[in-house]
Amino acid sequence: MRSGRFSARRSGLRRSFAGDGVQAHLVTSLPNVRYLTGFTGSSGALLVYARGATFVTDFRYRLQAAREVSGCRRVEQRGTMTETLAQLIGKKGLKRVGFEGAHLSFSMHRRLSRKLKGVRLVAAQGRVERLRMVKDAGEIALLRQAVLVAERAYRRAARRLAGRSEREVAASMERAVRENGAEGVAFAPIVAGGRRAALPHAVPGRAKIREGRLVILDFGARFRGYHSDISRTRLPGGGGARAKELYRLVAKARREAVRAVRPGVEARAVDRAARGVIERAGYGDCFGHGTGHGVGLEVHEGPSISSGRREVLEPGMVFTVEPGVYVENFGGVRIEDMVLVTRSGCEIMTRAIPAVSF
Amino acid sequence: MRSGRFSARRSGLRRSFAGDGVQAHLVTSLPNVRYLTGFTGSSGALLVYARGATFVTDFRYRLQAAREVSGCRRVEQRGTMTETLAQLIGKKGLKRVGFEGAHLSFSMHRRLSRKLKGVRLVAAQGRVERLRMVKDAGEIALLRQAVLVAERAYRRAARRLAGRSEREVAASMERAVRENGAEGVAFAPIVAGGRRAALPHAVPGRAKIREGRLVILDFGARFRGYHSDISRTRLPGGGGARAKELYRLVAKARREAVRAVRPGVEARAVDRAARGVIERAGYGDCFGHGTGHGVGLEVHEGPSISSGRREVLEPGMVFTVEPGVYVENFGGVRIEDMVLVTRSGCEIMTRAIPAVSF
Repeated sequence: MRSGRFSARRSGLRRSFAGDGVQAHLVTSLPNVRYLTGFTGSSGALLVYARGATFVTDFRYRLQAAREVSGCRRVEQRGTMTETLAQLIGKKGLKRVGFEGAHLSFSMHRRLSRKLKGVRLVAAQGRVERLRMVKDAGEIALLRQAVLVAERAYRRAARRLAGRSEREVAASMERAVRENGAEGVAFAPIVAGGRRAALPHAVPGRAKIREGRLVILDFGARFRGYHSDISRTRLPGGGGARAKELYRLVAKARREAVRAVRPGVEARAVDRAARGVIERAGYGDCFGHGTGHGVGLEVHEGPSISSGRREVLEPGMVFTVEPGVYVENFGGVRIEDMVLVTRSGCEIMTRAIPAVSF
Repeated sequence: MRSGRFSARRSGLRRSFAGDGVQAHLVTSLPNVRYLTGFTGSSGALLVYARGATFVTDFRYRLQAAREVSGCRRVEQRGTMTETLAQLIGKKGLKRVGFEGAHLSFSMHRRLSRKLKGVRLVAAQGRVERLRMVKDAGEIALLRQAVLVAERAYRRAARRLAGRSEREVAASMERAVRENGAEGVAFAPIVAGGRRAALPHAVPGRAKIREGRLVILDFGARFRGYHSDISRTRLPGGGGARAKELYRLVAKARREAVRAVRPGVEARAVDRAARGVIERAGYGDCFGHGTGHGVGLEVHEGPSISSGRREVLEPGMVFTVEPGVYVENFGGVRIEDMVLVTRSGCEIMTRAIPAVSF
């Protein structure tokens, strides 16, 4: 991505300074640092001032930062990161500095406060995350790549399921994701058959997948920092009436949720659309998670599509729609797609592999 | 691992309560939760009281927690995690509760404090991490497996380097790690050839590895939650005098550092042993990172083997010894082994692949 994009994002962040009167904002969450600078390393922080910005990293990333980060001053960490940041803030004579309350630890905040007596540190929630919720064209292109790679991997590695172990299928998904050009998987793939499909976050086991039982596959790829997140439920060799009934129920919930997605709608309305279908069928207790979550530089980010969330959907938002029903000692169904909010509704990004596979 | 082990660890934690007079300790760091309960999921917290303990997770992990966590009360999260924890602490009538200052975010701490007016929350640093520094027999066995798998993967996937791209070698290392029975890699492998070997944390690129240039490989495996972390530097096809000189220098630094490892010695003495060798050769500026770090449920944990660290080495500690020299526009060398502190000195755990390969 061109560096102009990062500097535009930093300008977007500055526009929020007026809200709580800060003179600068300290960014310590790595995905947020990456969003604002392009830095892909595992240790770095960014101070964004009303004009200009300073990026701090340690010795190990000196050369990488020189290549990746432009348009801001680059400083190498001396002593601890806290000491370096305190020095920078002190030297600038700043009096009121925002920080990321959800990311800075209690202890680091305490150390910073002690070193910066005259400075008021103001906890801000989700300042950069709010910007990140609405994706720009470059981000959408990368998300499409992450989807494409995961879909291809699924088609190659999960064609046949019965007789293979969950772990085997998961390993071949991982391999296929990488061979299709991703940096790696977005998260360790979930492959959960039979009763284990009732565990929303099961770890793939040694058990062989059997015909006639529900199998949930939840997988994704990471492409230049951006993620995909998709779930499909399969019923190899066909199955009994109850499995099919659950599947049709979740498919309907997904359909209704997707229909509810358009600009101006609150996130909770999308959740309600899915949850209503499942509740009316008497399975409300078996759907214990939210309907979806944003996807981008993190697998889970804003907006959260769940009950009570009043964030208003906007064009450019990308999130999952993933209703599920989990029945203890029987199995579960989850269908998860990624959608992009458009001007008039939404586009299903994960269309290449059909949601309904039986 | 048997549940007795986890309950013994919780008892170990309780013995530290007297130090700051807390009645309970709140554990929110996931590796610490795993260490104390065996829970492998991605959302959970543990309250350890003077007697007994309560484990909290959300709906998604209900069944998994029932299988993995025993010997403590299990509670399902209602509302947010903070709300659930505040309720538990409130109901118990606790007045003084420790928490993990380095892991609890500023915001979560603030929310908890507001809900728990009469309760004093006491930040404690590294309470569980200190226990984790000394590995028990079960942990050492798992670490040995993690080492074995990584060594086998290296021997299979990194035999030939010249002519292959860094990315190709990294991908085949990943595959080999998994095929040898690991859960996955401990971290994305580093394969950095030529000038890129001067970047201590380079991301593998498309460039082909050339003969006569230094190549750093840094890799590891995860085996039932435990990690290995190994680096080797190679010089495919042989190389010039300077590359060999750098290699011999780092090999000597590693040797001296390993010799310094024994119970009763301070961590900084091991760092000094390695750093002294490199400084005397005039390359002090080119060794910008610490000499090593503990390895266990996390790839980086205590003890930190670096200047100024006064932790005293004890039998059962496992850490890396990894001096390196990085010369801009030329290349770099890092040799990283894992050692286990024994009663009389140390055992090099990563002996199957020779440290000196040219």
